Amino acid sequence: MQALILLAHGSRRAESNREVQAMAEQLAARLPGFRVSAAFLELSAPDIATAIDRAVAQGAGRVLLLPYFLAAGRHVVEDIPAIVEERRTHYAEVEMLLLPYLGAAPGMADFLAALVPTSP
Amino acid sequence: MQALILLAHGSRRAESNREVQAMAEQLAARLPGFRVSAAFLELSAPDIATAIDRAVAQGAGRVLLLPYFLAAGRHVVEDIPAIVEERRTHYAEVEMLLLPYLGAAPGMADFLAALVPTSP
Repeated sequence: MQALILLAHGSRRAESNREVQAMAEQLAARLPGFRVSAAFLELSAPDIATAIDRAVAQGAGRVLLLPYFLAAGRHVVEDIPAIVEERRTHYAEVEMLLLPYLGAAPGMADFLAALVPTSP
Repeated sequence: MQALILLAHGSRRAESNREVQAMAEQLAARLPGFRVSAAFLELSAPDIATAIDRAVAQGAGRVLLLPYFLAAGRHVVEDIPAIVEERRTHYAEVEMLLLPYLGAAPGMADFLAALVPTSP
């Protein structure tokens, strides 16, 4: 079984965190081969280490982590990789793959440009 | 002339802010009818009010603002609308349109799902 964890920042606003959970559910509907969940760096639960632990406990042999972030700030460059590395040392038998963050996706500029109404 | 301002959070990491500027340049290349710039809520410059002032000073009769945010946290729901509303009262003659934030875009779940490698 493969797991996909959508990694978000987390917000003081519960509605914002529910939105991330809803996005994880939309991903689950699109990726039938994965058990999909959401995890938060701060201000909401579960945290990233807990989400990884749960995925492994549920039998995931491969855990993909997708940072739902737009720019490579400190969270993306330092905090998230450190958490994943720390968990990796506990689960030598599990393949753990930290994917590129969303903002680095090829096609993001096209996706964004399509959101702009070009005529008044 | 129309202006498009990409509104980002801003980071302590300069590289992250440069990434947002680079995204604004990529948008400019795709939207020839717009003068495109980036603005930051905090931790980098210009701030949003300054970017709006500049666009108007450069002759924009219509200013579109695109929040480069993934979830409707406090920044998206309160802070950004308040800044835009405040500036709007200064420029009655300018059409100012706050677009939906990126995370609300239809197609985001599909875009995200396409980033996941489905076979090991």
